[in-house]
Amino acid sequence: MHTGFIGLGAMGVGMSRNLHAAGLLTAVWNRTRAKSVALQAELGVAIAATPAELAATCEVVVICVSADEDVLAMIDALLPAARPGLLVIDCSTVSSNTARTAAARLDAKGAAFLDCPVTGGVEGARKGTLAIMCGGAADALERARPVLAAMGPTIAHMGPTGYGQAAKATNQILCAGAIQAAADAMAFAKAEGLPLDKVIETLGKGAGGSWYFVNRAPFMARESYQPGFRVRLHDKDLRICEEMAAARGATLPMVTLTRRDYATLIATGHGDEDISTLFRLRDALFQPPT
Amino acid sequence: MHTGFIGLGAMGVGMSRNLHAAGLLTAVWNRTRAKSVALQAELGVAIAATPAELAATCEVVVICVSADEDVLAMIDALLPAARPGLLVIDCSTVSSNTARTAAARLDAKGAAFLDCPVTGGVEGARKGTLAIMCGGAADALERARPVLAAMGPTIAHMGPTGYGQAAKATNQILCAGAIQAAADAMAFAKAEGLPLDKVIETLGKGAGGSWYFVNRAPFMARESYQPGFRVRLHDKDLRICEEMAAARGATLPMVTLTRRDYATLIATGHGDEDISTLFRLRDALFQPPT
Repeated sequence: MHTGFIGLGAMGVGMSRNLHAAGLLTAVWNRTRAKSVALQAELGVAIAATPAELAATCEVVVICVSADEDVLAMIDALLPAARPGLLVIDCSTVSSNTARTAAARLDAKGAAFLDCPVTGGVEGARKGTLAIMCGGAADALERARPVLAAMGPTIAHMGPTGYGQAAKATNQILCAGAIQAAADAMAFAKAEGLPLDKVIETLGKGAGGSWYFVNRAPFMARESYQPGFRVRLHDKDLRICEEMAAARGATLPMVTLTRRDYATLIATGHGDEDISTLFRLRDALFQPPT
Repeated sequence: MHTGFIGLGAMGVGMSRNLHAAGLLTAVWNRTRAKSVALQAELGVAIAATPAELAATCEVVVICVSADEDVLAMIDALLPAARPGLLVIDCSTVSSNTARTAAARLDAKGAAFLDCPVTGGVEGARKGTLAIMCGGAADALERARPVLAAMGPTIAHMGPTGYGQAAKATNQILCAGAIQAAADAMAFAKAEGLPLDKVIETLGKGAGGSWYFVNRAPFMARESYQPGFRVRLHDKDLRICEEMAAARGATLPMVTLTRRDYATLIATGHGDEDISTLFRLRDALFQPPT
């Protein structure tokens, strides 16, 4: 199955390598051409001149970009080559509405679309251990399965178009709560003079444990916040969550708290650190003013 | 090692059975005598007439009660029998200050004290799989080890008196964040029409996963909140956390949010449900007013 890849960021480059290893990767396109050139040098993969050229030479196009407008710009750019038999898989994290808009534009040309956001981070993209949350038609998902399986072992069909993104938004809400829990707890533990490594090891195995506590509380213990998951990107995802909830007249109290904290962190120059940098704000609450 | 047990609640009865199975349990005492009588009928264990009688006939006394004042009342009640060689192990969840007060009163009579709160819940108490966070002198902990090992495999020495309670408080903060994350996420997922069981299974394995999401989001999915961990008890523990933070001039934002939610739940008759009942409040945010 000839597969093209658009978006060679930190996630995309790992996913592309795994598609290449599975014998599926035909060509790539990236806004910054230097990244395509580097991957061509490494893998010998073709570089498409435009997204439309990529779509013309492939049966499946995978997109992995940052923002809602980027996804729709890529859909519009490949639309001239859209046709029955073309399947576009969007692995970006965007809103369910963007997924539905993309699907409708492709459907008008007879092409299929799946929203397939992923979790597992850069490490999961590299190792091919991503979990993939899928929205769209079941027959399109069956066609996509070899491509998705090259990127991760967990492929969960959540429902029609947009449902993959809704599941990913749910995941980002969970991450917000987990980092809040870890930050409050670690600031408290530090103030009490507890041995932080022992606290992480002991409590991480119990009912208070979470992936974030086990894997990111150590960042807090040594006050070093190399991403990981950047504050700026999680904030973008949580904005999507808030907007989706607002469209139903609802709020998400813990997300609201987290976005307020992220605004402070971004304003003070910490937006490109791992979200465990939230510890800065909680730790500061325990510091007497000087 | 002759061991006595005070406090045959849901936790204490499981821990007592495991001490009996290890050949350590000599006698019990409980405020409500009927529970002692039931355990005597089951295990053939002796019932002490008073906490002081229990302490007089044992080298180790384990306490597992609900509140700070209950712990100090038990210490005062057994104080007439306190002597060099007596070791009191308090497995209740109370403040570090209560632990220090208890230790000082016993120390004045030459007796030793350890604060050893546990995690793992009623199930862990029954199965003997508790994690135990210990504060106090290392030599007292070595003496206590056979007794603790009968109750759980994880015995972590966190520091001097009060440090076990500080670690437990840290754990309760983690649980607050975890239940907030699960409640926001599940209310959102339900509103989006996602298949909740599939969401729990898929997201529970990823970076958003936590013990609470995997084990208590299913309570939310079926809207059934049998404890588990009662709102009222977690609220008590979080009050301790807030007071300990306040003593250092600090606040815990996510704990503050959670206690506000728990006040609402208690006021509306849900204080004896599992803390996953927080889902009620978040789900209601998505319900259009009628």
